[in-house]
Amino acid sequence: MGFVVGVDLGGTATKIAVFNEQGEIRASTQIKTRTEDGGKHILGDIASAVRAVLNEEAIELDELVGIGVGVPGPVMDGRTVTSCVNLGWGETDVASFLERELGCKCRIGNDANVAALGEAWKGASRDTHSSVMITIGTGVGGGVIVNDRIITGFHGGGGEVGHFPIHPGVQGRVCGCGSPYCLEAFTSANGVVADYLVATGKNMSCEEVFDAAKNGEPEALAVVDNMQRLLGQACAFIASVVDPEVFVIGGGVSKAGEFLAEGIRKYYDHYVFSSIKGSKIVLAELGNEAGVYGAAKLVLSD
Amino acid sequence: MGFVVGVDLGGTATKIAVFNEQGEIRASTQIKTRTEDGGKHILGDIASAVRAVLNEEAIELDELVGIGVGVPGPVMDGRTVTSCVNLGWGETDVASFLERELGCKCRIGNDANVAALGEAWKGASRDTHSSVMITIGTGVGGGVIVNDRIITGFHGGGGEVGHFPIHPGVQGRVCGCGSPYCLEAFTSANGVVADYLVATGKNMSCEEVFDAAKNGEPEALAVVDNMQRLLGQACAFIASVVDPEVFVIGGGVSKAGEFLAEGIRKYYDHYVFSSIKGSKIVLAELGNEAGVYGAAKLVLSD
Repeated sequence: MGFVVGVDLGGTATKIAVFNEQGEIRASTQIKTRTEDGGKHILGDIASAVRAVLNEEAIELDELVGIGVGVPGPVMDGRTVTSCVNLGWGETDVASFLERELGCKCRIGNDANVAALGEAWKGASRDTHSSVMITIGTGVGGGVIVNDRIITGFHGGGGEVGHFPIHPGVQGRVCGCGSPYCLEAFTSANGVVADYLVATGKNMSCEEVFDAAKNGEPEALAVVDNMQRLLGQACAFIASVVDPEVFVIGGGVSKAGEFLAEGIRKYYDHYVFSSIKGSKIVLAELGNEAGVYGAAKLVLSD
Repeated sequence: MGFVVGVDLGGTATKIAVFNEQGEIRASTQIKTRTEDGGKHILGDIASAVRAVLNEEAIELDELVGIGVGVPGPVMDGRTVTSCVNLGWGETDVASFLERELGCKCRIGNDANVAALGEAWKGASRDTHSSVMITIGTGVGGGVIVNDRIITGFHGGGGEVGHFPIHPGVQGRVCGCGSPYCLEAFTSANGVVADYLVATGKNMSCEEVFDAAKNGEPEALAVVDNMQRLLGQACAFIASVVDPEVFVIGGGVSKAGEFLAEGIRKYYDHYVFSSIKGSKIVLAELGNEAGVYGAAKLVLSD
C-alpha cells in the first residue's frame, strides 16, 4: 500500500496529483510556477505543496513510493534537466533535490513524452504497448512509447516530431529552433493562424479558423486541409520508423475533435505504405491531466 | 558451452554460420535457395545444411542453443512469415518447423532488421544501445535498435524507412509498394540509375554513376548530391522519432564509402534540429555477414 505523486511542471502553473496504488487520483492541487530569480524557488515550492496536500489527506511521507515530474525541456537519464529557458533554469538536478526533500525516489521526463505515457497508461492508448502521441498547441511536441516505455533518445531527442524537416519552407516562416522546415512551424496553432493570415489577410485565432472551416469557408478549409496533410504525412513517417499500434492526437488544438482527426487519417492512408494503412489515429482523452498521469507512471514503470 | 546458428535466407542464396559462445564464427556454409514449388524445400534444405555443417565440426545437435533466421519479408511475433513473394511463400511458420527439425529454439526476423542487429552486436554500431541502419541496395531497407532490441512495430512495419513518404513524386516513378513518394524510389541503386538517365539520357550502373561523381562529372555529382540530401533528411526524421546514438549506412551502394557518408552527414546537420546536430553517421562494417550475425543475436538476446 502506497501513494505516488505526479507533477506537471509548466512555465505558468504546476499541477500536482496524488495517486493511490490503483492509479486513481486521490487528491490534487495547483500552484503558480515562480520563474523569477532563475527559477530557484520552483522545486522548494513543489516539495512544500506535496507535503501540504499529503497532510490534508492524512498520508504520511513514508507512504510515498515516489514522485514523477514532467518538465518543459530536455532531460538526461531521468533525473536532470539540461536547461529550460521557460523556467529560468540552467542544468538542474531535479531528482536529487526532490529525493532529498521528500525522502522517496524521483524520476523526471520531458513534458510531451510524459503526456504520451499518461495517455498510454490511463487514456486514449491504454491497453496498448506501443503508441505515439502528437501534442498540437502553441507548438508541436510528441512522445514515443514502445514496450510501455518512453523512447527518450540518446541526446533526449526522442519524440521531437515538431522538428520533422517536412516542409520545403516559405518566406519568413521559421521554427523556434531556427529551422525553416519544421512541422511545428506549419501545423501548430501559430502555424494555422499564420497560414490563414497569408491566405486572407485576416487575423483569426486557430479556434476561429477551425470553426470557419467547419462552417465550410473555403480559405479556412484549405488551411486546415494543408495542416491535416502535413500531420498525416508525419504519422506515415513515424509509422515507417516504429509502427505504433495507435497514434494519439492531443494538445489544445485537438479540441477541434473528429473534424481534425478525420483529415489526418485520410492523409495518413494516402502517404503510408500499403501493408500498414489503417493504423488507429485517435484523439487524446486525458486533456490537461495527461501530464500528472504520465509523471506518476514514470515512477511506477521504473 | 553451446553454439548458435545464424541463417540469412535470401531469394537466391542462403548463408548459414555457426557461432560459439563468444560470438565468433566457427564454421559457415552457403546453399542455393530453392524457390520452386512454392518454396516448400527451403526450410528442409536449411535443416539438412545445418546438420551437415555441425557434423563436419563434430558438434552434437544437443549443443545447439538455438537458430536464428533473417527472412526477406514481414515477420509476426518472431516466428511466422506473413508472406514472402521472393521465396514463393504464403504464411509460413518458420520457427515451429526448425524447432521440430533441430530440437532447439528458433527466432526469426525481417532481414533488414536483423542486419541492423548484427551491426549493433559486432559491427559499426557495437558498444551502443540504440542505432538505426539504412541498407541501400536494389531497394532501401532499415532496422531500428533501441535498448539493444529490434523495434519490429505493431504490424511489422518498424524500420521500413525505404517507404518514407519523403518526395513530392516525379512523373513515371513509383516504388514497388505502389507509392510515388517513397525514399526507396529515389535513393536506391535503381533510383540513382533512373535519375542519371533522366539527367543525361545515358544508362549507367549505380556504381558507374558514383565513380563519375568521384571524378567530378557535374551531372553525376548532382544526382548523388540529391540522393545524399534525401538520405540526410531521412536520418533527420528518424532522429526526431528515436534519436539513435548512431546511424549505420549499409547495403551494396555503401561500398561508395566515405564519399557517400560525408554528403549524408552534411544534409543531416542541415535538416535536423539544433540540439542533436552532429549525430554519428558511419558505414556498415560486416558487409554480407551482417545477416548471419544478427540472426544469431536474435536467439542470444531473446
